[in-house]
Amino acid sequence: MKMKAVEYAQAHQADFLEELKEFLRIPSVSTQAQHGPDMVRAAEWLRDRLLAAGFPEAEVMPTAGHPVVYAGWAAAGPEAPTVLVYGHYDVQPPDPFDLWRTPPFEPTVVGQDLFARGVSDDKGQLYVHVKAAESFRETAGAPPVNLKCIFEGEEEIGSPSLDSFISEHQELLAADVAVISDSHMLGQDMPAILYALRGLAYVEVEVTGPAQDLHSGTYGGAVRNPINGLCAMIGSLHDERGRIAIPGFYDRVRELEPDERAELAKIPFDRGAWLAEAGVTTDWGEPEYTIIERTTARPTLDVNGMWGGYIQPGAKTVLPSKASAKISMRLVPDQDPAEITRLIAEHLRRVAPPSVTVEVRALAGGHPADVRRDSPAMQAAFDAYAAAFGREPIFVREGGSIPVVATFQKVLDIETILMGFGLPDDNLHAPNEKFHLPNFYRGIETVIHFLENLAAREM
Amino acid sequence: MKMKAVEYAQAHQADFLEELKEFLRIPSVSTQAQHGPDMVRAAEWLRDRLLAAGFPEAEVMPTAGHPVVYAGWAAAGPEAPTVLVYGHYDVQPPDPFDLWRTPPFEPTVVGQDLFARGVSDDKGQLYVHVKAAESFRETAGAPPVNLKCIFEGEEEIGSPSLDSFISEHQELLAADVAVISDSHMLGQDMPAILYALRGLAYVEVEVTGPAQDLHSGTYGGAVRNPINGLCAMIGSLHDERGRIAIPGFYDRVRELEPDERAELAKIPFDRGAWLAEAGVTTDWGEPEYTIIERTTARPTLDVNGMWGGYIQPGAKTVLPSKASAKISMRLVPDQDPAEITRLIAEHLRRVAPPSVTVEVRALAGGHPADVRRDSPAMQAAFDAYAAAFGREPIFVREGGSIPVVATFQKVLDIETILMGFGLPDDNLHAPNEKFHLPNFYRGIETVIHFLENLAAREM
Repeated sequence: MKMKAVEYAQAHQADFLEELKEFLRIPSVSTQAQHGPDMVRAAEWLRDRLLAAGFPEAEVMPTAGHPVVYAGWAAAGPEAPTVLVYGHYDVQPPDPFDLWRTPPFEPTVVGQDLFARGVSDDKGQLYVHVKAAESFRETAGAPPVNLKCIFEGEEEIGSPSLDSFISEHQELLAADVAVISDSHMLGQDMPAILYALRGLAYVEVEVTGPAQDLHSGTYGGAVRNPINGLCAMIGSLHDERGRIAIPGFYDRVRELEPDERAELAKIPFDRGAWLAEAGVTTDWGEPEYTIIERTTARPTLDVNGMWGGYIQPGAKTVLPSKASAKISMRLVPDQDPAEITRLIAEHLRRVAPPSVTVEVRALAGGHPADVRRDSPAMQAAFDAYAAAFGREPIFVREGGSIPVVATFQKVLDIETILMGFGLPDDNLHAPNEKFHLPNFYRGIETVIHFLENLAAREM
Repeated sequence: MKMKAVEYAQAHQADFLEELKEFLRIPSVSTQAQHGPDMVRAAEWLRDRLLAAGFPEAEVMPTAGHPVVYAGWAAAGPEAPTVLVYGHYDVQPPDPFDLWRTPPFEPTVVGQDLFARGVSDDKGQLYVHVKAAESFRETAGAPPVNLKCIFEGEEEIGSPSLDSFISEHQELLAADVAVISDSHMLGQDMPAILYALRGLAYVEVEVTGPAQDLHSGTYGGAVRNPINGLCAMIGSLHDERGRIAIPGFYDRVRELEPDERAELAKIPFDRGAWLAEAGVTTDWGEPEYTIIERTTARPTLDVNGMWGGYIQPGAKTVLPSKASAKISMRLVPDQDPAEITRLIAEHLRRVAPPSVTVEVRALAGGHPADVRRDSPAMQAAFDAYAAAFGREPIFVREGGSIPVVATFQKVLDIETILMGFGLPDDNLHAPNEKFHLPNFYRGIETVIHFLENLAAREM
C-alpha cells in the first residue's frame, strides 16, 4: 500500500501541475481591496479541490476579513493521530510588475521551475498536502491518519483574523500535531526541518521636544532637539560589542547548549556568499556567536524606520518638534514579547533627556517557538524526508517568525512540524517568484511518507 | 535742514502706507515657479519707485535666478561716505492659507499693525530706506551721503545668485558701510542693534549598510543596521552636558568677555515666557551660559531632519540599506564653515562602525559675523535710534544668519550695520505676518538721522 500512494502521485505529476497553475491564475492579493472577489474565488476553488481530493467535509468559513478554508477527513478512526495542516492561499502583491520576466499570474514553466506569484509562498506548498491526501484516496481509500486543514487568506497582511478564528474553533481544530509547509530547504538536495523560530516585539517610539517646529537659529543651543535626543536613546540600546544594553533583556534567553551548537555547525555556510547576498563587506554582532547563531538563535534589535524634521531636498534650518522610530526585536525562547516591550519602554523613558516626552506604542508581537527535535512527530518528518529525498534532513532554526506556530502551541496545545519544500532563491515577496517542480513532486511524496510514519508510531 | 526731512516723512505717512500696500499686493514668492512674472513685476515696481524717490540711476539687473534691483545716487560727492543698502523684495509662500485672518496679498490695517505676507520680511523694512531718500530729495534736494541700493529677489531661497552678483559688481557696489533692515527690535519701545550673527555649516550624511533592504528576521543580528549606526554616530556628537564633542570644534570660538556678558545680561529676559514661546518645559544646553548666550553667542549642533527605512503606518520588519540625516551647526566668530564641515565629516567617519559606509555632503554654509560696537557707523546708528525712538538701543546678538553680511565683509571689505525695525511677534514665515506701523514711520526717521549722522562723522 505504501508504494501505491507514492506511485499514484508520481504518475499524476502532470495533472497536479495543471491544477496548481489554475490556482495560481487567481490573483488572490489579500492586501489590495480590488482583489476581494479573487480572494473568494481562490477560497472556493480550494474548497472544491479539497472535496475532489476526497475530503468529505470542506467549507469556506467567514472571518472579519478574508475567509478561512476548512476541511476535515476523520477516516482513520479515533485511535489514529489527527494532523492539522496550515497553509495560506493569499499572496503578496506582484509589484514591481515590470521586473517580472513572465506575467505573475500566468504561471510559466522554465526548465524545472514554475514561475508565478505565490507559487512557493504558499500555494504550491499548501497544495502538496491536498495532493498527498488525494493519493491516499485513490490508492487506499483514505489517508492513514485523520486530517484537518486550515487555509487562511490573510497571512500576507499579518493574519489579523486568525488567532480569534482558532480560539473560537478549538474543538473543530483539535489535533495531535500541526504541520506547515511554508518554509525552505537549504538547497536542491539538502532537505531541512525548521525546529525553532524567533519571536517579535515591535514598538513605535515618538519623542517630542518643543510643542512646534522652531527656527534652529533662534532656539538652537537652548532647546533639546528631539532627533538628537532619540538618536542618543537609540545609541544606548547596544553596547560596543553588539550586545543589547536594555537591562533584563537577556534574563529569559535560553543559552545554546554545546550539542545544539555542534548541530548548527553542520549547516553548510559560505561566509563569502553570505556577505555577497547580504550586500555587506563584513558581518557584525556578538563575536562569540557564529553568523548562523546570531541570525537564528540570538535575540536582536533593529530600527526598521526612523523619521523627523525636514526630509526634502536641500537645507532647512528647523529645530523639529518630533522624532519617531520603529524598533523591532527578534526574540528567542523563552523571551516574552509583552515583557520585552515593557523593558524597552522603561529603558527609553529612563535614558530620555528630561526636556522631552517619550511615547512608546506596541505595534506587533509574537512568541518565539521551538519544537523538540526528538519528538515522535519530528522523527516521522525526519524519516519521511530521508525516504523521499534520499538524504537525511538537517535541523535548522529560522530567524523570522511564523506567529501561528505560537498560537497552535498556546491555544490548541500542539507542536508544529515545519516541513518546507521551497528553496532559498525562490524570490518570495519579490519579482519572479518560483517553485522548483522536483520539490513540489517530492514534497507530495514526503508528506505521504510523513502521514504513514505518523500512523505507524506512538504519538 | 535736519528737521525738514523728518518733517516731510511725518507729513507723508499716509502716502507711504498706500505705496507699501501696492508693493505688498504683488505676490513675489520666489520659491514658487508660477510667481515668476510677479517677481519681475515686483522688481520693476521697485525700480520705478526708486526713480520716483530721486535716484538718478535705477535698474533691474538679471541674474541666473530672479533679478536684482540696483539703484545709485552719488549726490554727496567723493568726500562724503557711500552707504550700501541691502534688502530683499521676495517673500515666503503664504501657506497655510486658511490660517490667515486677512488675505496674505491684500494688505490690511488692523489697529496699528499692517498685515500682509512680506510686510516685515522684508518689503516694509526695505521701503523705509526708499522713503528716507525721498524725504531728503523733497527737502534738501539729495541725501547727505552717497547711496547705493541692492535689493535681491532670492533671499527666501538662500540667495543662490547673490554672492556671484556681488563679486561681479565690486566696483558698482563699492561703499564705506552697508546697512540692512531685516531684523527686529526687542519690543515696541525697545530699539536694538544687531552686532553679531551666527554662521552656519550644514551637511547631509548618508550611511549605507547592506546594498539593499534586507529582512530583519533573516539577517538581524549579523548585519549592522545603518539607522542604529547613524543614531550612535549622532549620539557621539554631544557630551552629557550639551557640549559638542567633535574634536577641534571649539578651537576658534571667541570666548565671551566679561563686559560683553554684562551687556547681554541687560537684555530683558523672561524665562517663563521664553519656555512658553518655545513650547518646552525646561531649557537645555551648556549650563555655564545663559539662554541668551547659548542661543546667540555659542555654537550649536542640531539634526534638522532624519530618515531611513520604513516610515509608513504599521509594522514592517525591514533591515534598511540606508539612513540619512541633515545636520547643521550654528557657528560663532571665528569659526570657519569649511573647517567645521571638514571636522564633522572626519568625526563621523571616525566613529562609524566598520561595516557601513559614510558619505558627508556640504549643503550650505555661511560665516559668522560681528561688527565692532564702537565703530563710527555703529555710533551713528546708535544715536539715530535714540533720536527717533527717544530711547537708546540695546546691542544684541542674533542666533540666526544673514549670510550677505559675511559676503560684504569678505568681498567688499565693509562692515554692515543691522538696523531692524520689526518686532519679535511679526510672524515671519508664518500666517498673519505683520509690521507695526509706528515702527515703519519711526524707521524712516531713524534712517534719516543715521544718514545725517554718517555725513557729519569721520568714517
